[in-house]
Parts: sequence; C-alpha cells; structure tokens
Amino acid sequence: MQLALSTWQEVETYLGHSTGIVIPIGSTEQHGPNGLIGTDAICPSRIASGMAEKQPLLIAPTISYGMSQHHMAFAGTITLRPSTLIRVVIDIVTSLHRHGFTHFYFINGHGGNIAPVTTAFSEIYAAIEGHPSHPLCCRLANWWRNDAITTLARELYGDAEGYHATVSEVALSYFAHPEAVKQVSMQPEVAPVGEIYHAADFREKFPDGRIGSNPALATVEDGERFYQLAVDALAEDYRHFISHGAQ
Amino acid sequence: MQLALSTWQEVETYLGHSTGIVIPIGSTEQHGPNGLIGTDAICPSRIASGMAEKQPLLIAPTISYGMSQHHMAFAGTITLRPSTLIRVVIDIVTSLHRHGFTHFYFINGHGGNIAPVTTAFSEIYAAIEGHPSHPLCCRLANWWRNDAITTLARELYGDAEGYHATVSEVALSYFAHPEAVKQVSMQPEVAPVGEIYHAADFREKFPDGRIGSNPALATVEDGERFYQLAVDALAEDYRHFISHGAQ
Amino acid sequence: MQLALSTWQEVETYLGHSTGIVIPIGSTEQHGPNGLIGTDAICPSRIASGMAEKQPLLIAPTISYGMSQHHMAFAGTITLRPSTLIRVVIDIVTSLHRHGFTHFYFINGHGGNIAPVTTAFSEIYAAIEGHPSHPLCCRLANWWRNDAITTLARELYGDAEGYHATVSEVALSYFAHPEAVKQVSMQPEVAPVGEIYHAADFREKFPDGRIGSNPALATVEDGERFYQLAVDALAEDYRHFISHGAQ
Amino acid sequence: MQLALSTWQEVETYLGHSTGIVIPIGSTEQHGPNGLIGTDAICPSRIASGMAEKQPLLIAPTISYGMSQHHMAFAGTITLRPSTLIRVVIDIVTSLHRHGFTHFYFINGHGGNIAPVTTAFSEIYAAIEGHPSHPLCCRLANWWRNDAITTLARELYGDAEGYHATVSEVALSYFAHPEAVKQVSMQPEVAPVGEIYHAADFREKFPDGRIGSNPALATVEDGERFYQLAVDALAEDYRHFISHGAQ
Amino acid sequence: MQLALSTWQEVETYLGHSTGIVIPIGSTEQHGPNGLIGTDAICPSRIASGMAEKQPLLIAPTISYGMSQHHMAFAGTITLRPSTLIRVVIDIVTSLHRHGFTHFYFINGHGGNIAPVTTAFSEIYAAIEGHPSHPLCCRLANWWRNDAITTLARELYGDAEGYHATVSEVALSYFAHPEAVKQVSMQPEVAPVGEIYHAADFREKFPDGRIGSNPALATVEDGERFYQLAVDALAEDYRHFISHGAQ
Amino acid sequence: MQLALSTWQEVETYLGHSTGIVIPIGSTEQHGPNGLIGTDAICPSRIASGMAEKQPLLIAPTISYGMSQHHMAFAGTITLRPSTLIRVVIDIVTSLHRHGFTHFYFINGHGGNIAPVTTAFSEIYAAIEGHPSHPLCCRLANWWRNDAITTLARELYGDAEGYHATVSEVALSYFAHPEAVKQVSMQPEVAPVGEIYHAADFREKFPDGRIGSNPALATVEDGERFYQLAVDALAEDYRHFISHGAQ
Repeated sequence: MQLALSTWQEVETYLGHSTGIVIPIGSTEQHGPNGLIGTDAICPSRIASGMAEKQPLLIAPTISYGMSQHHMAFAGTITLRPSTLIRVVIDIVTSLHRHGFTHFYFINGHGGNIAPVTTAFSEIYAAIEGHPSHPLCCRLANWWRNDAITTLARELYGDAEGYHATVSEVALSYFAHPEAVKQVSMQPEVAPVGEIYHAADFREKFPDGRIGSNPALATVEDGERFYQLAVDALAEDYRHFISHGAQ
Repeated sequence: MQLALSTWQEVETYLGHSTGIVIPIGSTEQHGPNGLIGTDAICPSRIASGMAEKQPLLIAPTISYGMSQHHMAFAGTITLRPSTLIRVVIDIVTSLHRHGFTHFYFINGHGGNIAPVTTAFSEIYAAIEGHPSHPLCCRLANWWRNDAITTLARELYGDAEGYHATVSEVALSYFAHPEAVKQVSMQPEVAPVGEIYHAADFREKFPDGRIGSNPALATVEDGERFYQLAVDALAEDYRHFISHGAQ
Repeated sequence: MQLALSTWQEVETYLGHSTGIVIPIGSTEQHGPNGLIGTDAICPSRIASGMAEKQPLLIAPTISYGMSQHHMAFAGTITLRPSTLIRVVIDIVTSLHRHGFTHFYFINGHGGNIAPVTTAFSEIYAAIEGHPSHPLCCRLANWWRNDAITTLARELYGDAEGYHATVSEVALSYFAHPEAVKQVSMQPEVAPVGEIYHAADFREKFPDGRIGSNPALATVEDGERFYQLAVDALAEDYRHFISHGAQ
Repeated sequence: MQLALSTWQEVETYLGHSTGIVIPIGSTEQHGPNGLIGTDAICPSRIASGMAEKQPLLIAPTISYGMSQHHMAFAGTITLRPSTLIRVVIDIVTSLHRHGFTHFYFINGHGGNIAPVTTAFSEIYAAIEGHPSHPLCCRLANWWRNDAITTLARELYGDAEGYHATVSEVALSYFAHPEAVKQVSMQPEVAPVGEIYHAADFREKFPDGRIGSNPALATVEDGERFYQLAVDALAEDYRHFISHGAQ
Repeated sequence: MQLALSTWQEVETYLGHSTGIVIPIGSTEQHGPNGLIGTDAICPSRIASGMAEKQPLLIAPTISYGMSQHHMAFAGTITLRPSTLIRVVIDIVTSLHRHGFTHFYFINGHGGNIAPVTTAFSEIYAAIEGHPSHPLCCRLANWWRNDAITTLARELYGDAEGYHATVSEVALSYFAHPEAVKQVSMQPEVAPVGEIYHAADFREKFPDGRIGSNPALATVEDGERFYQLAVDALAEDYRHFISHGAQ
Repeated sequence: MQLALSTWQEVETYLGHSTGIVIPIGSTEQHGPNGLIGTDAICPSRIASGMAEKQPLLIAPTISYGMSQHHMAFAGTITLRPSTLIRVVIDIVTSLHRHGFTHFYFINGHGGNIAPVTTAFSEIYAAIEGHPSHPLCCRLANWWRNDAITTLARELYGDAEGYHATVSEVALSYFAHPEAVKQVSMQPEVAPVGEIYHAADFREKFPDGRIGSNPALATVEDGERFYQLAVDALAEDYRHFISHGAQ
C-alpha cells in the first residue's frame, strides 16, 4: 500500500491494524559508467514494493536525495548537506508520529546516508525524551548489508562485486528498470580500491566513479535474484521489528 | 531524460547542449475523501515527463515532501518544516550549479510550497552575490495557475472546481494513476470555503479535507485534457525561461 | 495606542478588552531616484496610526528591516536573510502570545516580505500544534493589494503606477514625511518592466531602481487620499479578523 | 541624515565622504510603573538624532526589538531570542558592508543586548577573516555607561538612580516624548535590588519591574540634561572611532 | 569529586545531598611568548579542584574550547564560533538538569567567553519558561575579576599585569603545570595596550600576542598565591549561590 | 607535545615539520556500576599521550563531551545534541586548518560519536570544495575496533567483554586512573544484550547500564596491555595517514 496512492481515510483504517511504516531512502549520485544516478533510491523502492506483496504494509514516498558529498566531482550528483538530511528525516518521522505511527523502518540504499540518518534518530529520541506515553522506534535497514546478499554477490562475482557501483546494486536497478540497461566498456575491468576522503580526492583515485567493481557483469536476471533475497530478508526483519520493538 | 535513469557521463553530454533542468516538487498530504495523498507530487512529475516528450530536457527526481503544515490534522499528511524545505531546495540547486547548471525550473503542485521555495530562491541569490561569473536563475511554475487550466476547469465544473482537492488536480492524478481511482460519496457535494489558519482550525472548517470542491466529478478523461494543456503551457514557458533568463 | 509609549500595566489593562495587536512591517531598501529608503516601513506605520484614531488598538514597534535581497545592488539597501526575518516574526509573536495576545495583524509595506512572513506563520502554527487551549491567528495585510487603492492608482496614473517605487507608495510616504519630498528628474519618464531574479540582474534591467513607474507624479495630496483609503480598508479588515478569526 | 528618509543616490554621495554609520538599538520591554516599554529604543534614537545635528552622519533605522528574556513575566515585553538578535545584527552589518560601509557604531539602550550584540561582532569578524582588503570595525556604545551620565545621575538622585527603569533613562525618554509622561505612585519609593536569573525569578524579586530605582523623580528637564551629555560624549567617541578604527 | 572519575550511582548519591555542580570553562588560544595555549582552561580546572578539597562538590569535565575569534591570527588558537559555544553550554546544562541538577556554576578563565555563555544562559531560561516546577540558576564566575586577585596583581606587578596573557594567569598556570614553565625574552618588556577589533587587527597591534603585560614576571610561587585567593573567593561565592539562588 | 602546554611560537615551529594533529574525543556518560563516567575520554587521551612518547606529534585538548543521547536515563550522563557535536568538530578543524594543519586524526573512545563525527567530516569537505589548493583529510580512529584489541579481549574475557562498559575499556581507564578503581558487585555477572533504541528503552533493557559485559574482571594490569596494543596500532595508523593521505 503506497501512501502516495492512498487517501487519508485509508491511512486511518491502516492505523487501526498497524502503526508501522516503511520509508525507502536513497540518493542521487553517480554510479560509474553504466550505473544509474538513481540506483540507491531505485533499489529500496523496489524492495519495499516487493515486501508489500507479501504482507500488508504502508510505504511512504521515497526520499530520493541523500548525503552524497564525496561524489560531487561527478556531473549529476546532488547532495543534501548532512544537516539538511537530518532535518528531513526528523520532520518525516515527527509528522507521522503525530498521526499515531510508532515504528519507522527505513530501507536504505546508500552507505553515505548511515551517519546522518542515525544521527537524526538520536535527535528524534532526544525530542521525545520525557514523554514515555508516546514511544517510537526507528530502524535503518541497509539492504546490501545482509548475509544472503553478500554471499550471492561473492559467489557470482568474487572480488569484482566491489564497494561502489557494485555489481549487485547495478543488477538490482536493472531488474527494476530494464529499459535503462546500459552497455559501456570500462577500463580497467575491475576498478581500483582505496580510502575515501573528500570529493576531489575521490575523483582522482576513482576516475570513472567505481570502487573495486566490474558492473559490466550486472544483468537483469541477477538483479531479480538479489531482489528476491532482499525482499525475504527485510520482510522478516520488519516483522521482527514491529512485533518486538521498544514499546 | 530522467536524471535518475542516466549515468554521469550522459549528464556531462547533456550539459554540452543545455544548462537547464526541470525539478518537480509536490507534497504528501490529504486531498479529501477520494484524492490521493501524493496528488501534488504526481501531477508535476507527470507533466514534466510529458514536456520531455516534446523537447530534450533533463528531469531531476521529484521532491515528494513539501510544506503541508495546515493539513496536519489529517492522517497520512507529512510536512517538512518550512525551514527544512528551504534547505532542501538550496542544497539541490547548489549541487547542480557546481556541475554547470544555470536555469532551475521547478514545477510545483502545491500552493503551500510557494512561500518556502521562493524564500529559498532569495537565499540562493544571496549566496551567489558578488560572483557575477556564475549566474543562475530559478523559477517556480505552479502548473494550476495558468489561464488554459483555469478556463477549462471553470467550463467543466464551474464553482465546484474549488481550492483544495480541486477537481482538476484529482483528475490529473487519476490520469497518471488510473489504477488508483476511488469512488467515494461526499457530503455535502461541494465542500465549504473559508480562510485557512492553523491545522486544527482547518480540520474544523473543512472536516473531510476539501475546500470548495466536488472532486467526485474527476475523471481520467478530464485529467488527460488538463495534462495536455499543462504540458503545452509549461513547455512554452520553459523554452522562454532558458532562452531569456538572466544571463 | 503605541506599545512603545505604554507601560506594562497599561498593556495588562488593554488585554482585558482585546487580545489583538497590530504590527507594521516594512523594509529598508531603495525606492528609485525620489523614493525614500524607508518607504515600506513608513507607509504601514502611518496607516496603523490612522487606524488607531478610529478604534482602540495596540500598535507594536515597526519591524523596519525586511527581506530585500533583490535590491542589494543599490546603496543603502539592508536586507535580512529570509531565515532571519522568519525568526524575528516567530519571536515577536511567541513573546506576545505568552502575555495572552491571540490575533496578530501584520500590516505589510513590502512584497518581498510576503514569502518569509507567511513561512513564519506556518512555523508558528507548527509550534503550537497540539495545544488547542492556546489558539492564535496571524494575518498579513498588504496595504497596497486592495481594490480601493489599485482603483485610485489606475485612475490617477494609469500604467505609470508601476510595480516598484510605485507612485502610490511614494505619495503615501510623502504624506507621512512632507519634509522629505524630493524633486528628481527621471529618464525615462516611466521605468521599464520585466521579471526579477537576483540582485545584479535587477540592477541591469532597472538601472535607477524603479519598475514600471513614474514616481515623479507623487504628491503629498495624493498620498493623503491613498492613506485614507488604506486606513478605512484595513480598519474594516482588522475588525473582521479579530471578531471572526479561528478561535 | 536618516537612512529611512534618504534615496539610494544620496547614500552613494554620503559614501564618498564617510564610510561610517550609526545604528540605534534598543528593546521593547517593561520599564516599571511609569517607564515606557520603548524606553531603550527611544533613548538611543533621540541621542543619534542629536549627534547628527552636530556633524554629518548617517543613521540607520532603530533596531526596536532586543534581548529581553528576563523581563518576559511582564505584559507587553517582546524578546528576540539571543540567537535571533545575533543574526539581525550580522545581516544589517553584512548588507551595509557590501555597499562600502566600514565603521558600524551601534548606540545601545539596553544592557541585555550587550552579550548577543558583541557575540554578533565576533561572528562578523570570523566571516571576513582572510579578506584583509575589506576591513570593518564594529563598536557598541552603551549611552548610560558614561562618566558624565553616571556623575549627574548620582548627583541628582543618589542611590535612587537604580539599575533598571533608572531615573535617567525614564527622564531621557520623557524628554523625547513629553506627551507620554506618566504620573504613577510607587510602593516602595525606591525599588529593591538583587541578582537577576530567569524571568519568573525576576518578577518575584522585583514585582513592579524596577530594580533599585525611584523613577517618579524623572522629569523632562532632567531628561534634556542627560540627553545633552550623552550627545556630547558619543559624538566625541564616534569621531574617534571612525578616524582611528582598525583600517 | 570529579564527574569523570565517578560512576552513575555515585552521582545519584551526590544528588541526594546537593543539586549544584561546578563546570570549568576555558579556551585554547595563544597567551603570548611564554604563556600556555591552555592557560584559560588550566586555571579554572585547578581552582575547581582546590574548591573541592574544601567542601564536597561535583566538578564536570572542563570545556577546553572557547570563543577565541580575536586570537585566530596566532598559530594553535582554536575557536568555537560563538553560536557553537552557546549550544555546547545549553546542551550540558540541559542534560544535567534532566538528572535533577538545579545550580550550574561555571568557573570561567577567558573574557571572550562571557558574551556567548551569558547568551546561552538566556536561551536556557527561555526554554524553561512556563515550567516553574523545574527551576534552575546559572552563574558565570570569572576567577580573575575579583578584588583579592586584582589587588594582589597590582601590588606585585603594577601596570605590568596587563589585559591579555596577564602575569597572574600565566603564574597560576605555571603553578598548575610547573613542568611547562618557559623562559622567553620579550620585546618590549611590557606589551602595548589598545582596543580589540578583529583578528588581523589584533595581531598588527599586539604582534606577540600580549596586551599590556610583562608575563616574564610570572613565577610558580606567585601562581600559588593567586590560586589560594581564587579558591577562597569562589568557594565562598559558590556556597552563597547554591544556598540563596533563585529556587 | 600537548597543544595546551605549548606556546603559539612552539606551534609555528611544529608546523615547519608536520601538519598533522591528534584530537582525542570521548564522552561523559555512564559506564555501568564500576566504570567511570569519563571512560571514553580517558582512554583516547591516554593513548594519544602514549603515541607522543614514540614519535613527535601534537595533541589537541580532548573533546570530553560526546553524543550520549541513549545513556541519558542514567544520572551524570551529559550529551551534546548530534548537531552540536557536529559543529564543535567543524569549528576545531576549521580553526586549525587556517593555521596550516592538513591532517586531522581523531582518536575516538565512543561508538555514539561515529555518526556525528563522520557527518562533520562531510560538512567540512563540502565547505572546502572548490579550493583544491587547501586540501585536508580527517580520520576517525576508534581505538577499540582493532584486531589486536579484540583478539586480546576475546582471549581474556570471552563473551564477557561485552558491548558497553566493556571489560577492556574499563581496564584501560583503570590503568590511566588507578586511584579511581572501584569494587562493585554486579547482578547478573554478565549483563544482557539487545538492540538499542531510545534512552528509556535502554534503561529498561540494561538496568545497570552495562551491555553484555562483566567489567568486574577489569584490572589495571590488563588495562596496560590494552593500552600498549592500542598505542602501537594507532601510532602505525597515524604514520600511514599523514604520509599517504589525500594530498
């Protein structure tokens, strides 16, 4: 059930059964020569839809802009300052909390969001402190940090899975948008690895935007496998979260 | 051309031809008994896609969350505080400006966004002051404030077009999402009108969320007519903007 | 009754009869070759005093600094950043609300203030949400957006009334400060019109600061006529506001 | 020369001779049973006008709202949060600095403004750091902290001068606004003294708002004497400031 | 009793006896050719420890970073922006207030902290307004602004005590850290005096960082005398504060 | 070399040899029944001193207050809001960067600091973007996330090492402050484990503050072993950082 396609009365009805909500969050940033700029938003959105096919749950509109400061040396990347993203998350949770939602399950597609989003959670908890009658719990589920996903990626691509513009995320985004599959030759086949500091440094070390990956291996078929694994794992984790969360 | 489905190299190529970009902005708020919570984001997104079929242009991901403070007494409404929305707009424009974009054309679906978004434009202009070598122009196009749209709405619905959850916007959202058309009976047929102050006051005056409208009249067919008119009008306005803007 | 010339006990007495207050807000910005930099603050201050002659009301000190970013290419213009002006309005309303005031009637002299001030109203309403026992209503009355005013201006000056440094506002400021009437010849007689983006762009398009007006036509006598019309219209609107506002 | 009554071209002419400007700053807060709520804004405004009669200088509109948190338990007091006042001062100085002003002379009427205003100066200096080609200096002149003033006050009133709603400031405000002189009997004649913490504590210790003073002694005639002394002292200090300041 | 060396249960026990806490606050800034960069943090920390030997009291970790904008032209100086320091103070007080502390006694070593810290106090008082059941009082004790200290300094050094990198503070820091005593020859013996504006101006007027002092006179022995006087004076002041504060 | 015990000229000399600096960062929060509230600040401070014995390096004053929101249900815990801590880190790095420092090596003692501190790094990188001539690199070294440390902890304590108030950190703090060793009996011997949400939830799940640990096992001797391992590992990491960092 997509919040965007519902009416407010339908949301009221939903709240009679569940006070949990799923919020996909991604980014708008370069993903190498054949990866989509929307990859990190596309993957969690698609996974959330898959989860909703298995159980009744409400999905908020995807937060499409994330913290992508380190990718800013590549055209098309858009970054929220971390402090802005923190406020976006606070405002969304605070609004929904007023309507009675208590369990906020963020499906995240981008490593750079982890620090600001968990920071936002701390600010949210600080704000409700002293109001024990209105509990709420927030959880950030990074879909790619999952045994099932990493095992399959290693099996399929070995070290060529990489760290940014990974084969698995490009594959999953291709599964979601087969019309946008790109054929691009890359040099070298597998991108270099290294530590990330600021944006200019990133571009110098990783000139085409990839880190350690060979996303030319990505296919729609593989993407579907990653999708299925992610849906299963996160659906399970979400059920656990809303039933056992701090109440 | 959707930014989310492009690679960074494709954006570099685009920048060789144009430095304009289209950014749909909406809200996540109640739209009465049969209107979708995502109406204000759905309409500008769909219009932007229509414009891109007529001329080459780049569309950024839709800003789905807006300033909806006055709708907060209805379940499912999510509002960014105005100060948060201001920062979101600033960060998006600033990021794209660094890559060389100069003309930022926001297609807006929600009246409540006008004040914060134009406020953001002033902050952006203040920040670039004294850097005459890096000009930029921002424009907020409110798709429904358009002679063609208002004429057709008056012709089709007379006074029942209304001011919130209008027939025209519900129709356009139904055209974009025919799978989400809702049949709901409403009492009274045409909603009351009045002035808007804070959220509790809004709910008291307008108990089902509509202001002055009878959105039961909305059809997919009418929606397509509004869509075509909006695409034509905004495509023309965009061409004018990028060719004559402050350069 | 001027708040600045009252004692706190006199305010307590006033609160026994009325919980409404009038707050003039203007700007400190160029108004063309013969317009005063304080025009936008002078007009609402003078109108407020006129209203107080007709009915008992309390007038707060004028907010003399507004959002004038787009006039910054002209010497003497002072702008608050929009975010600053928002906080000023929030703090003033919040302070008075604590003393029991509930109806805040801002008389505005400057178009550039509209977006930040209405944004501030949204922030204020957000802050009081959930405290239904402490209602408050804010209203921004733009004195020049008034049928009586625009009709007289058209009648007297036709198109030469213009959009910035208008004849009517210069005339009203001359009525308030006849000692500051300036005789300046202008070329061209009627200033050009066009769209406004950032400050450098403004100066280039409107080199002497006027938009579309010929303020050489302004006289003290005309100013008095505009003043009377504005006082009548706003006094009526204020009475309506405090008696019918969201309570 | 009042900025509010000048045109932008007149300001340009002024800048050819001087880059100094005078900015009165006060507050809107209780001043005991017979003191005006605008006392702290009225005094520096009047003193600035007196200085301008002696030498050519430009006076910006008075900042009428200050930091009056500790007076908030008395009706009519309006306080800016310190952080708001800091931003107001930063924005005013920054705007004027862009036009070429370099010496900012604030005449202050309120002790509670000292901390936030000097804090703002530090923020301003931090912002210009590394731009040695654009020097600027800010000075806060507290008119009542002056040997001539304190000597006369002691001579006239002894200990009854007090610390808040002092006889001297009430007298000076009466000189500026003789139409607003109030006759109020006070109990006790001389108010108590003590340390100031938060607003509720203030009201408890000083129930009518005065600290240590007997402002029933204030007369228009005394007010004129304080006014003359302040004008002489600050005019001298201003000349010293603009000729010897850090350039 | 150092908070850093206590357990949370020990703090609970302490709160059964006292709700006062001592918080040393200093800076990290140049103190001339032989003064330590940590002088302003070292002195209040050492004084607080001395006070704790005389009476049971709890000492929070020293705030080592202060507002040192005007010293930024000297290597090693670190400044918090005033707005940052304000938030640090607010957060520390707010946290401790939640645990039941009511009297916050800051021992300050740096004049530049006075404006931001007292500004923070106003923000704190504003936040608790309307919650009379949770009173709190904050006090800033500037250890060097004390009759006993200034009398001894004048007696020992006359005018060579100075205004920054004073002999007394260098001596007290040497007493606290005899291992860090430095022998440096200075030219001129006694540093110049003058007014302080921004950082570049400071360095130009006071090239080695001192203002008006000859800290070559500082000895460990003198430092101990200042230390004893400060401990006695502040212990007395603290006792008065916690027993008579606004409760 | 401690910055606090140096003069500004000594810092200038140091900058001739190295532009790296070490900044310990901890927290002020409960560490269970026998752990010190200052544990997280004490450990990195002591480790930094140990590193300085092996190679010349400059150590800034410890940031003693961190992000400890989730520990706020235990007396004595002090938390900076994440947004405050972010600004503290930004200001410290920015100040030192102006003096010529380029490599900022934070030694962290507290997991809760990771999100805000890395968020601050992103804000810092964003601010220097476009100034390639002034590179800087920031690194957060979490002393306890280290193979040598975790191997020894597992060997010595098995699962009783735990996750908060771990045996290893309590031991290291005891080595640094043997005068503060506490003997406290705990029930149960090994604390429970679980997920962390907000502060009230934390206290309910972990009533004495520990997570999964038995810190009664901590000894000064073990602490010294952890200390030596940490010094060796971080000294090596620091050398690598300053020689290979993004330059």
